[in-house]
Amino acid sequence: MPSDTSAWSLHPRLKEDTIDIGDLPLSRVLVIKDANYPWLLLVPRRAAAVEIIDLEEVEQAQLMTEISRVARALKEITKCDKLNIAALGNAVPQLHVHIIARRTSDAAWPRPVWGVVPPLPHDAEEVQNFISALRRKIWLG
Amino acid sequence: MPSDTSAWSLHPRLKEDTIDIGDLPLSRVLVIKDANYPWLLLVPRRAAAVEIIDLEEVEQAQLMTEISRVARALKEITKCDKLNIAALGNAVPQLHVHIIARRTSDAAWPRPVWGVVPPLPHDAEEVQNFISALRRKIWLG
Repeated sequence: MPSDTSAWSLHPRLKEDTIDIGDLPLSRVLVIKDANYPWLLLVPRRAAAVEIIDLEEVEQAQLMTEISRVARALKEITKCDKLNIAALGNAVPQLHVHIIARRTSDAAWPRPVWGVVPPLPHDAEEVQNFISALRRKIWLG
Repeated sequence: MPSDTSAWSLHPRLKEDTIDIGDLPLSRVLVIKDANYPWLLLVPRRAAAVEIIDLEEVEQAQLMTEISRVARALKEITKCDKLNIAALGNAVPQLHVHIIARRTSDAAWPRPVWGVVPPLPHDAEEVQNFISALRRKIWLG
């Protein structure tokens, strides 16, 4: 069954919690507003998708390509100790993939990040520098 | 750089916590010994892999194919409310992908499952029935 490509829009909860940094062929790339961790989301622009298995096979392959590209950029920029990559969606049903740069010194380590500490506001200049670096690596690198 | 295909063996911690149900072309498929959730692992048989981005591109695509196949089987068998799919690896460095069937009535919902409640031993017959159903769906279905 073909995925629904019409009428996609970003879930209001994801919109509120993130900064939009651009679109890849399948997914929107977002930065989560939480300075505790360098934390990105990929959101495939397919209206009906809740699970990865709701995507067509070719879209699943494209999602993996985009995960890999974004994860590599995030790792190169942050020099993190570990990547955490996850599609959970227990709170927000719209399919989204977390790509998080973890450090052994971060607020939640070694636990997963969800629900451990409240979000910390970004320093405006720092997050702009981070986004500029990501844009260069993801779209030009 | 090609992945290391030599000398792979399952990490002792993963071996202890799981039941081996068989191999797909890239990954070993395991059931986590925890009756709280129907919980599977895919472990790519590549000795040096810690991150998804440590796999070659063709292996990443194969991993997505295997994730999709196993997730679909798990969803069909369990009729779960949500799938949780994640590559974390903060505790065990060997690359492994969690594929978990979540219910809105389970012990951790809506939180991620890690660290919420202690593992619950399986009923021997129930887990054998679950494994038989999985094997049919994953390798024959």
